[in-house]
Amino acid sequence: MIQTPYYLIDKAKLLPNMEKIAWLRENSGAKALLALKCFSTWPVFDFMRDYMDGTTSSSLYELRLGKEKFGRETHAYSVGWADHEIDEAVSYADKIIFNSLGQLDRFGDKAKGIATGLRLNPRFSTSGFDLADPARPYSRLGEWDMARLEMAEDRINGVMIHYNCENSNFELFSDQLTRIEGEFGSFLKRLDWISLGGGIHFTGEGYPIEKLADRLKAFSDAMGVQVYLEPGEASITKSATLEVSVLDIIDNGKKVAVVDSSIEAHMLDLLIYRETAKLPQNGTHEYQIAGKTCLAGDIFGDARFDKELEIGDRVTIDDAAGYTMVKKNWFNGVKMPAIAIRELDGTEHVVRDFGYDDFLKALG
Amino acid sequence: MIQTPYYLIDKAKLLPNMEKIAWLRENSGAKALLALKCFSTWPVFDFMRDYMDGTTSSSLYELRLGKEKFGRETHAYSVGWADHEIDEAVSYADKIIFNSLGQLDRFGDKAKGIATGLRLNPRFSTSGFDLADPARPYSRLGEWDMARLEMAEDRINGVMIHYNCENSNFELFSDQLTRIEGEFGSFLKRLDWISLGGGIHFTGEGYPIEKLADRLKAFSDAMGVQVYLEPGEASITKSATLEVSVLDIIDNGKKVAVVDSSIEAHMLDLLIYRETAKLPQNGTHEYQIAGKTCLAGDIFGDARFDKELEIGDRVTIDDAAGYTMVKKNWFNGVKMPAIAIRELDGTEHVVRDFGYDDFLKALG
Repeated sequence: MIQTPYYLIDKAKLLPNMEKIAWLRENSGAKALLALKCFSTWPVFDFMRDYMDGTTSSSLYELRLGKEKFGRETHAYSVGWADHEIDEAVSYADKIIFNSLGQLDRFGDKAKGIATGLRLNPRFSTSGFDLADPARPYSRLGEWDMARLEMAEDRINGVMIHYNCENSNFELFSDQLTRIEGEFGSFLKRLDWISLGGGIHFTGEGYPIEKLADRLKAFSDAMGVQVYLEPGEASITKSATLEVSVLDIIDNGKKVAVVDSSIEAHMLDLLIYRETAKLPQNGTHEYQIAGKTCLAGDIFGDARFDKELEIGDRVTIDDAAGYTMVKKNWFNGVKMPAIAIRELDGTEHVVRDFGYDDFLKALG
Repeated sequence: MIQTPYYLIDKAKLLPNMEKIAWLRENSGAKALLALKCFSTWPVFDFMRDYMDGTTSSSLYELRLGKEKFGRETHAYSVGWADHEIDEAVSYADKIIFNSLGQLDRFGDKAKGIATGLRLNPRFSTSGFDLADPARPYSRLGEWDMARLEMAEDRINGVMIHYNCENSNFELFSDQLTRIEGEFGSFLKRLDWISLGGGIHFTGEGYPIEKLADRLKAFSDAMGVQVYLEPGEASITKSATLEVSVLDIIDNGKKVAVVDSSIEAHMLDLLIYRETAKLPQNGTHEYQIAGKTCLAGDIFGDARFDKELEIGDRVTIDDAAGYTMVKKNWFNGVKMPAIAIRELDGTEHVVRDFGYDDFLKALG
């Protein structure tokens, strides 16, 4: 039995997402690139590669990872490239997407051998969090002024428009795409490709994926472009768990089970967005599941079990693939969860474990 | 010139903190242990060791780091020890402090060879953030019920009481200590040592450190105990900067300078506590300083400069030692800042750089 804590990526749960992505590509004509910012756990890239067209990135290191470990089509995007990065970036990329006209001005010549794009910010989004809203006031994410877009026109052949965020509402997606057609259509028709970014929750249960395929195809036909999608969370949703063990049970007016993990160290978005983990909810025995760090608010959430918890019991925290492993850190020196894979035949094996030496080397 | 981004620890700025700590130890009789959860950058431990009594920890890895890299007195604390950790923990520790009576029941026998304590939660604190407030409802951090404390009495000879959080108000500290004397004094008088934890901002400018020394001495005399302090932020406050470079300048109604760093990846507490970085404020040229990740709210804050910024200009972000290097992570695959030291003679050298291989190995 693998020692907790560990992230467990289950290929049998990853497969349905991959199959939906492959179906959507086939039926919409859109290409799908894994967004590495959400999930960069490359030991499963061999498994994912057959279902997707490649990767997109948000930095030089992600770009190189995509090129070397995933292969196929490799998109390079960064909010800001540095002078010392650009040649290396171009060497890995099939397409490079600049975040601003200023970056295009500075580096466009360096990118002449590959397809070049610009980030277009439509000034609306589906984000419910100001923190994550690319359309927030003074947003630095992309260009929206038509005069500036036209200044770029002879140097680009595509754009990336990332404005969805965990959007499970097809009608909202479709309406906003119509708005984009209306506001930017005449410009978009002069391009070869358009990436609609990530954040469309089309692998979720009940999502009308057929309608999405039709809508993407209609958009692609109307604009005369190759459409790209950049699924991050949609690629890996519900495909991994975080496996932890109970270290202590405390009752200070409420039963609290302290586990050998931490939201801040291992599932950071729960803390940043003040959200609750997906925990067992079957049974009548209620516990708050809390982390083992000094942070008073290191709390995964409330869970229910069919029997009383005991020290050493294992607890499974669901939906732990997206934005978890890429953000794990050494807060409190808590052991980082190992990364394990469950193969389709049910066998489990650890692909990376972390120990004291990793902690030591993180700090000097 | 060292390539940005990098954390720069300046020994000349660290020294005044160390001297204040040494002065306080001398004049109060209290011992001072570095709280590794705040700062674990061991390449400067050789420099700090002469001014402090040792370290305290919040996990097995921090404990081992303190023992091996700092030495002197080593306190072991964890919200939850695991069965497979306890023997190793005891082997490094001079004192072990259990978080709950349950943990003491489970592991007390294992710790018989060393001094043993329990965390006492006085049920009040100075924290302005619910997230970081150990006195919040149902807190799992320590015991407060006198009946339970007395159940531990024959197995412990000390307690740790951590209830301050960046408390720069001496009167508040003193009043709360009086409250502790009143509520728990009869119990505390039967102990050999009491740690008052960290969070007392006594190295800050203008702090009445003489009054603090007197108050600690009076407390120590009244209780008949050895007092410990666990300065984290107080040990390293204002001793380091984060050095970054401007990658792009964007004007969408406000001038935004994108730099080669990120609050989420490199100064995480700015994001968690929704705070603003300490930035240059001299001059009439205003810029918002923003990170290079995809996060719309990756914003350090507003700064002023005496001339217009240009691509490649360096910007210094102040007070970047505490809870930064210990929490840095690979969000967006942004290059982790190197760790550099400025020696007392002004020379600067990198003690740890991070590259693509570190990113790769973090994920598989």
